[in-house]
Amino acid sequence: MADYDLHHHGDREVGDGLVDLAVNVRLPSPPPWLRAELAAALEDLAAYPDPGAAAEAVAERHGRDVSDVLVTAGAAEAFTLLANALRPRHAVVVHPQFTEPEAALRAAGHEVDRVVLSASDGFVLGPVPVDADLVFVGNPTNPTSVLHPASALRALVRPGRLLVVDEAFLDAVPGEPESLAGERLPGVVVIRSLTKTWGIAGLRAGYVLAEPSLVDTLRAVQPPWSVSTLAARAVVACMRPSALDEADKLAVRAEQDREHLVAGLRSLGVEVAGDPRGPFVLVRIPGAADLRLRLRTAGFAVRRGDTFPGLDGDWLRIAVREPAVTDSFLDALRGLR
Amino acid sequence: MADYDLHHHGDREVGDGLVDLAVNVRLPSPPPWLRAELAAALEDLAAYPDPGAAAEAVAERHGRDVSDVLVTAGAAEAFTLLANALRPRHAVVVHPQFTEPEAALRAAGHEVDRVVLSASDGFVLGPVPVDADLVFVGNPTNPTSVLHPASALRALVRPGRLLVVDEAFLDAVPGEPESLAGERLPGVVVIRSLTKTWGIAGLRAGYVLAEPSLVDTLRAVQPPWSVSTLAARAVVACMRPSALDEADKLAVRAEQDREHLVAGLRSLGVEVAGDPRGPFVLVRIPGAADLRLRLRTAGFAVRRGDTFPGLDGDWLRIAVREPAVTDSFLDALRGLR
Repeated sequence: MADYDLHHHGDREVGDGLVDLAVNVRLPSPPPWLRAELAAALEDLAAYPDPGAAAEAVAERHGRDVSDVLVTAGAAEAFTLLANALRPRHAVVVHPQFTEPEAALRAAGHEVDRVVLSASDGFVLGPVPVDADLVFVGNPTNPTSVLHPASALRALVRPGRLLVVDEAFLDAVPGEPESLAGERLPGVVVIRSLTKTWGIAGLRAGYVLAEPSLVDTLRAVQPPWSVSTLAARAVVACMRPSALDEADKLAVRAEQDREHLVAGLRSLGVEVAGDPRGPFVLVRIPGAADLRLRLRTAGFAVRRGDTFPGLDGDWLRIAVREPAVTDSFLDALRGLR
Repeated sequence: MADYDLHHHGDREVGDGLVDLAVNVRLPSPPPWLRAELAAALEDLAAYPDPGAAAEAVAERHGRDVSDVLVTAGAAEAFTLLANALRPRHAVVVHPQFTEPEAALRAAGHEVDRVVLSASDGFVLGPVPVDADLVFVGNPTNPTSVLHPASALRALVRPGRLLVVDEAFLDAVPGEPESLAGERLPGVVVIRSLTKTWGIAGLRAGYVLAEPSLVDTLRAVQPPWSVSTLAARAVVACMRPSALDEADKLAVRAEQDREHLVAGLRSLGVEVAGDPRGPFVLVRIPGAADLRLRLRTAGFAVRRGDTFPGLDGDWLRIAVREPAVTDSFLDALRGLR
């Protein structure tokens, strides 16, 4: 079943001076206030990191107990911790989605069953095998950009099952609808990332919200001092009301920019998957694999779709950028079709 | 056997305005040239980290192939990767030593056998069980400060066994004698850290040197993007000849400072363990557990010894500091005995 390159990510597709529509990070660098906080923290690097204040800030932000919070070195570490700590009998990953949860499960020696949602109905979340005791869903899902209703997620909760909802992109949706982060549902794990909104993919900052017993289980397999001092500082800074307000404004802007991109794509007759709600869109274009290469020649890097289980060479993921960048991309696309 | 608090570390003993003789980090903050590099890297955090240049710098520094190198989020991550990737039948940790290797093995579900070296002969490295297929040794060893001869380490190598040498403190020994980092010995893994010499415990930067097949095995269980952009940048900077030269000068200074500390301790009749070679010394003082608390009252934090397997409440670890700090500590110690 390891038939897709699960370790392929958009960052491998950028470079060579290409306009980057492949990586889903919004800001070209952290905002000045965040850079200033990080610069100040450089004085304090001699001490071992302490994620205590970061965990408290996360708890406060989501109305959770601090015992519900584990700060992690990005969402990627959270997947590895879950894979190493748990002994699922029947692990299910709902695809198409970010491939690292499945990769982490496989690296830890677990079998993985795939539930593949259908493009024909817009990748709507459906049932999973009744005996699945570990289920991974992304919301909104990368690469489909589909936002599943919270009710559909809650319907997957059942005794003896752990439902892991990857909300790494939910802070890019205005108002954060359909989030389970603020709910204290038994058997539900929510994973968050600071990477995309704040332009800090290089820093590795994320967190897990779960029942205290599971948080303890994950902490037991987390390397000590795993979250760097700078990542912990970034978490504190990005949980402040002023940052949350700024994130929501960025999300509103991203939504407008996405509508501009989607309208442009549709005016070119391009099929846009589902009802995109994230800062990227998934498109189906016959011959996309070849088109992607020609786009590179024209100066644009878009994310190939064929490394996502459930998709093939006809799919591309395109990051939402400001309208001027989108327009130049659409011009290039028009010329190449 | 989990009878010691393996997760206790010196960073838990500092604070409250105490003079820190508990944590083995030499610099109070990264040197200006390193801070400047890290500050410049804050502009580049939006991109996902890429450890490629760091791995090349490490390979160049040690005269190894880049395929022998895995850059890690500190030495601590390396222990976890080894514990998760390997399936030892008989894992042995040579104690007293840094407790995280054993903690990582236990967290991954492995049984751990302890070989405890004897204080009576200065913690000299002796034999390990012949069927041990995974052996962890520190060199120089934390907390004993003993530097084992390379020949004694090589004598532990045998077919079917992996010998892991934690050289996290070896760059604090002038000339780095007895290192196996530059040798390409089958079945030998060397772990290094940048934390102690460069005052960047908060950054999480280290690396593994091993055979390419093992490097690949460890990489397969390492979370993606585990090494942050800043940590990778620090590795590149600290592998430069100018940095190595500076590190050696710091090590020479630390050696002089250690001799000052050891002479002062011995003049007070304190038993100093072994032949200390690292930037810390281990001492045995009857009633040290109580003395440690009185030292705190007097304003000095030293590292308790009783959380290290093989030691008890009569042992303390004392970090090497500049002579003025050492002298004030020795004055306090004289008054309390």
